[in-house]
Amino acid sequence: MKYNHTVDYGLYLVSDRDVLKGRDFIKSLEEAILGGATIVQLREKEASSLEFYQLALKAKALTEKYNVPLIINDRVDIALAVDADGVHVGQSDLPAHIVRSMIGQNKILGVSTATLEESKKAAEDGADYIGVGALFPTGTKTDANPVTLDQLRYIKENMDIPVVGIGGICEDNIKTIMEVGIDGVAIVSAILGKENIKEAAESLKASIK
Amino acid sequence: MKYNHTVDYGLYLVSDRDVLKGRDFIKSLEEAILGGATIVQLREKEASSLEFYQLALKAKALTEKYNVPLIINDRVDIALAVDADGVHVGQSDLPAHIVRSMIGQNKILGVSTATLEESKKAAEDGADYIGVGALFPTGTKTDANPVTLDQLRYIKENMDIPVVGIGGICEDNIKTIMEVGIDGVAIVSAILGKENIKEAAESLKASIK
Repeated sequence: MKYNHTVDYGLYLVSDRDVLKGRDFIKSLEEAILGGATIVQLREKEASSLEFYQLALKAKALTEKYNVPLIINDRVDIALAVDADGVHVGQSDLPAHIVRSMIGQNKILGVSTATLEESKKAAEDGADYIGVGALFPTGTKTDANPVTLDQLRYIKENMDIPVVGIGGICEDNIKTIMEVGIDGVAIVSAILGKENIKEAAESLKASIK
Repeated sequence: MKYNHTVDYGLYLVSDRDVLKGRDFIKSLEEAILGGATIVQLREKEASSLEFYQLALKAKALTEKYNVPLIINDRVDIALAVDADGVHVGQSDLPAHIVRSMIGQNKILGVSTATLEESKKAAEDGADYIGVGALFPTGTKTDANPVTLDQLRYIKENMDIPVVGIGGICEDNIKTIMEVGIDGVAIVSAILGKENIKEAAESLKASIK
């Protein structure tokens, strides 16, 4: 049984502690969930394994309380250690089919892709969803090359698994992006970088519907 | 069954691609093994997960050929993905008891410690051996605080599991360190940083005996 069919990818929150500018991490995640985030991905590229693990344990307690899936970026070991709901890997992380064999069939597997070829490969390798992007230039991932909305539409039309758009999505472009027909949008700064995190999430959520 | 009793920790090679200055990684490991390295730890703090995985796959093929155990530093997921012989964690990595529960009883678990208290805790948490240090100032780990030879002896005398010394060990100090009665020495630069890797390993090996 895949987790897939019960997951709402609509407002997919990706964490970045930098944009919080010192505000409490778990409290900020909670505000985002209260504002309507439907799934949470923990992304930590600088933390030690111990720090990542400790954050993930706290995030797991929080997301469980609100019945929102918790996805761990890149680190399959951290995901397994805290019994997260899934793992998200990019093209520079462990190969998706290896990750699937490590996490079993009951956890969610997401893969970042930028082309239809990568997306098809991800699905073959066991991905439950793909995160396609970056759609717009973004401050949180400096290596990202923009994917156009036409490319995003083309990928969505040719894929059977859920497609989540990612990269530079904000209040100004979210409606245009959702019109492509994708299943959700992954958002970092446009939620966690805002002064009122809950309101920012609520506003984006309203734009999705 | 613990792997422990069959492992020779005598000349414990820890990898660092920086000190190779561009020389081939796997060929360098092979020279070290041919020179007498009894166990190999892959340590990669900057590589992407994919790169670490690909290096670990190659290292696994090599160490299997020579029947030398392969240990992965920090990344339990990489260790599991390539079916390495064990994992080595520091005090800023996943807690040892969590790692033990993830890797099972048949893989080697090593833990870096600097005090008897940390060493006792590591053994309780399931460590098969401890790496104690840093014994001398070192260029490869800048955060290391030296552990004295008296402290190392005190730890060795009070521990039942193998004790490996680490940090700044080279031709000049290896005999003095081995006189403490420890089970092995972990070495980075004094092997991989040398022009003739095989000869450097051979020479250190002779000093151990």
